[in-house]
Amino acid sequence: MNILEKLQTRLGPLGEHAHYAHGYYAYPRLEGEISNKMMFNGEEKLVWSLNNYLGLANHPEVRIADNEGSRRYGLAYPMGARMMSGNTKLHEKFEAEISEFVGKEDAFLLNYGYQGMVSIIDSLVDRNDVIVYDAESHACILDGARLHMGKRFVFKHNDIEDCEKQLRRAQKIVEKTNGAILVITEGVFGMRGDQGKLKEIIALKDTYSFSLLVDDAHGIGCMGKTGAGTGEAQGVQDGIDFYFGTFAKSFAGIGAFMASTKEAIMFFKYNMRSQIFAKALPMPMVFGALKRLELIRTRPLLRERLWRTTEALQKGLTNAGFDIGNTNSPITPVYLNGTIDEATALVSDLRENHHIFCSMVVYPVVPKGMIILRLIPTAEHTLKDVERTISVFSEIKLKLVDGHYKQKVEMTI
Amino acid sequence: MNILEKLQTRLGPLGEHAHYAHGYYAYPRLEGEISNKMMFNGEEKLVWSLNNYLGLANHPEVRIADNEGSRRYGLAYPMGARMMSGNTKLHEKFEAEISEFVGKEDAFLLNYGYQGMVSIIDSLVDRNDVIVYDAESHACILDGARLHMGKRFVFKHNDIEDCEKQLRRAQKIVEKTNGAILVITEGVFGMRGDQGKLKEIIALKDTYSFSLLVDDAHGIGCMGKTGAGTGEAQGVQDGIDFYFGTFAKSFAGIGAFMASTKEAIMFFKYNMRSQIFAKALPMPMVFGALKRLELIRTRPLLRERLWRTTEALQKGLTNAGFDIGNTNSPITPVYLNGTIDEATALVSDLRENHHIFCSMVVYPVVPKGMIILRLIPTAEHTLKDVERTISVFSEIKLKLVDGHYKQKVEMTI
Repeated sequence: MNILEKLQTRLGPLGEHAHYAHGYYAYPRLEGEISNKMMFNGEEKLVWSLNNYLGLANHPEVRIADNEGSRRYGLAYPMGARMMSGNTKLHEKFEAEISEFVGKEDAFLLNYGYQGMVSIIDSLVDRNDVIVYDAESHACILDGARLHMGKRFVFKHNDIEDCEKQLRRAQKIVEKTNGAILVITEGVFGMRGDQGKLKEIIALKDTYSFSLLVDDAHGIGCMGKTGAGTGEAQGVQDGIDFYFGTFAKSFAGIGAFMASTKEAIMFFKYNMRSQIFAKALPMPMVFGALKRLELIRTRPLLRERLWRTTEALQKGLTNAGFDIGNTNSPITPVYLNGTIDEATALVSDLRENHHIFCSMVVYPVVPKGMIILRLIPTAEHTLKDVERTISVFSEIKLKLVDGHYKQKVEMTI
Repeated sequence: MNILEKLQTRLGPLGEHAHYAHGYYAYPRLEGEISNKMMFNGEEKLVWSLNNYLGLANHPEVRIADNEGSRRYGLAYPMGARMMSGNTKLHEKFEAEISEFVGKEDAFLLNYGYQGMVSIIDSLVDRNDVIVYDAESHACILDGARLHMGKRFVFKHNDIEDCEKQLRRAQKIVEKTNGAILVITEGVFGMRGDQGKLKEIIALKDTYSFSLLVDDAHGIGCMGKTGAGTGEAQGVQDGIDFYFGTFAKSFAGIGAFMASTKEAIMFFKYNMRSQIFAKALPMPMVFGALKRLELIRTRPLLRERLWRTTEALQKGLTNAGFDIGNTNSPITPVYLNGTIDEATALVSDLRENHHIFCSMVVYPVVPKGMIILRLIPTAEHTLKDVERTISVFSEIKLKLVDGHYKQKVEMTI
């Protein structure tokens, strides 16, 4: 059997749904300016699916900067990897500004978040070292850990007791191998919205010798008093040895950065395979990232608006009897019980009849029988959007409990 | 010992040179418009380091498109992964056009080349399958292969006999595991410039059952009569099961694509981790890629200019007694013998006194005692650039042989 034949027999847990989901539940096309209202299949929807936390995607000053950067440099510049021919003063300027912003000595601007994280992990450990990481870590962390030739131990999501247990196991190993321990977690977990227990993990440094890598993709820009991220929010930024942030969320762009000590950053610049062997982040994105950073620094109102909406949404949902788990970030998961068929009927009802667009998470990402509707408030959402959404959600929840979506599924079979 | 301490004791094969190389031999800053002449440390240099094969980076129509795309959409749109919220009609339009261009049924537009390739390999194989790949494959292929839980066999670079030997080993394994074989090679190898032996590998399909994945990063746009790549150049595009091209070279941008059968593309859309779990390629780049593809299709003169310069450079160097190996692409490596110290003195002489900027490749990328000066001609280089370069190269080669750079090194110690 060759691979082309095999692919047709193993579509994968997501691919199995493609025949009905494609273009609607998966690969939907949201059109128009990025905001709280966008077009989907020709109709305007209230959108809760985008990590545009601070509303920077279409902030007038950001749009001007993006246009100006592209006009000055085009999308090609610089050509080549940073190391070979793709370095610029602007890349270095951003590195100086972002490291100051997050309170680290230096930073390394990365061409993409996903491959950035994979290569960070890959470069930091050798076969004598042990990785200890949270069970619900993002795919890029898992892929980085998968490259590791030594031991890796996973701890139950945000379970400090289990984390300590895995640290003890790791310590026994590195005593023999003369290796080191790398602990990896996230600032904010993108699915459930709960913060990683950075403070508690860092407290374990009193007992165990390890370095801590934190992926703060969802935290940078919106968490902490100044927006410097989850380390700032928990008052433990100094305890994070390797601080990673991306531009895919609050920064509304692409690319990422690693911030750490001067020595560590020099090490990364000469040892991260995805950066040494791939093209630099395009100049207009660096130019635009500088503008975004300036706005994050100087416009606290954007964060205030985000949090006002977040609090209204989360309090409102809780008061209306919804289970939103233990989120303590803007990410707002609404937990419901139902089958995949019910979830799809419900989401379709939301989109077609109530004009609310949100993402759903079902098995295999969460256990069978669980549905998560994930809402992401932004600085662009209004309190009216929140009110309407809670009212509609109350309606669809009743219909779900009454078996309405079950009947609907049966009717269409 | 913790990881931060360890990093200072293991700088890595490239990092060991950082203390003198940084900002000059490594991480140099090339400034000004991308062309044959650019600014380096305040002086104009003739640049042979950029994979801007067709000169599209600063083609007036490309610059207009890049500016227009950024004006219309900003760099943020679309937000989210293609699967969740980041799909657009323009992404799909590009997929339709590029698949037609390279003669495949369908295509999948990828957010970055490096992580694209890693996840392509990762998605295609399971532990029962065997990967057989060329020893000089690009880092992203090696990283993809490193994720594989099953067997992987490497064949000597472009050695068909050894490739067949590894296929026989692989066949024995998959007979037991009921797995499949994936062969991976490149269209054009970026360091030496020799084409992968696609035709010969595809001929092995008569004897062995395998699928072929080709990374044509350097081939797409400049190889083949229409620029459709190395498969076209060798007349064997149909024998390539998974055709991968990037935008980092001829397309002068970022991003990549995979072209294959309709079923395979649907499989990739639901199984490539770096695409499912990371943000889509920004819209201005998609908009700009459509313009680049149009120019590649409709302006054969760009390819003619590239090849005229390539032929003049390669014939000129050969006639002047230089060893350029067995390149059969625009990439032109000049092989010299010398130490790393001599190489750095020579490159500095080239840059400072002759105002020629090219990249050097030394140990550990090539064996000790070997220096490669890699020249990359583009459609923007002139025959005068070629003449001057050959004349300067003849001069520096004499100085190298005469021990001039050795003395210079000794003098500075």
